[in-house]
Amino acid sequence: MRKVVLGLGISIDGYIARPNGAVDFLFMPKDYSMAPFFATIDTAIMGRKTLDAARQMGGSFGRSSMATYVFSRSEPPGQRDALTFVKESPATFIRRLRQRRGKDIWLMGGGELARDFLQADLVDELYLGIVPVLLGEGIPLFPSGFPRRNFALVENKTYGRGMIALKYRRVRGKGKAKG
Amino acid sequence: MRKVVLGLGISIDGYIARPNGAVDFLFMPKDYSMAPFFATIDTAIMGRKTLDAARQMGGSFGRSSMATYVFSRSEPPGQRDALTFVKESPATFIRRLRQRRGKDIWLMGGGELARDFLQADLVDELYLGIVPVLLGEGIPLFPSGFPRRNFALVENKTYGRGMIALKYRRVRGKGKAKG
Repeated sequence: MRKVVLGLGISIDGYIARPNGAVDFLFMPKDYSMAPFFATIDTAIMGRKTLDAARQMGGSFGRSSMATYVFSRSEPPGQRDALTFVKESPATFIRRLRQRRGKDIWLMGGGELARDFLQADLVDELYLGIVPVLLGEGIPLFPSGFPRRNFALVENKTYGRGMIALKYRRVRGKGKAKG
Repeated sequence: MRKVVLGLGISIDGYIARPNGAVDFLFMPKDYSMAPFFATIDTAIMGRKTLDAARQMGGSFGRSSMATYVFSRSEPPGQRDALTFVKESPATFIRRLRQRRGKDIWLMGGGELARDFLQADLVDELYLGIVPVLLGEGIPLFPSGFPRRNFALVENKTYGRGMIALKYRRVRGKGKAKG
């Protein structure tokens, strides 16, 4: 089944961006490549605020190789440019997406959408790049307000300049603890 | 100089405890030992709320081998049982502690005291054990409200049941970025 992978770079204190949306604290070590990850996915999902922040930072979305969906309550649903806006619930959307064949699905943030996905238990994997800084304030990847979710560590690698990459797989309904 | 080491077990989403103070999600892998860490310290520091939570959970503090200080605004300062209550500022206290010879100093939480120490830039090392669970709510190790602090990764080890232990060293005033 197509997995949903929540994949992001974060600070040690769990922020995906500064309060203004800037991600200048993140970096890409020379010995690290996202290519193996990109090879496993063909679909990207983000929240509308993340899209806005990325656009403000001058970023562009919509890779020709990747279907890109934006969850928004304010924008009318439908395709515009290289993006498809979505208004339905994450559960309904993911169920439909999984009925089509394809590679894995990259949930690229932000925190509010991640919380919605975790609440509906739709996140199958975490892929986190942790950079060695405490920001002290910012936009959290995991805002509080979802039930406990257990994971298993699949990968822990250290890269240049102290970035570590962690891969976790969701473990459902095992063990004594709820989650 | 005696280092201040902020050392704690946390969930992937950065909680040191559940909302009620319970730490039942933490575990100690069979292949992991705190002995090497304990060998480097002779002093423990905690906040009063952490002491209360630990006492409620039936824990006891005050190892004969370790001087234990509790920061509190409400409790009168001074020694009681195996604990010494402290009311002065973290900066003043640590300066005084460092004038005496000794091993490193373990800052064992909670989040509010960690923030005070980070605000005063008194944390020299982080020693984090991350267990593979998202709690979704709880008491954060790094509540927001302190300036950016850069670190260097010193150690990244994987232990049983997916616990990882990370050691970071504070990097002061280097590089272009503030912090």
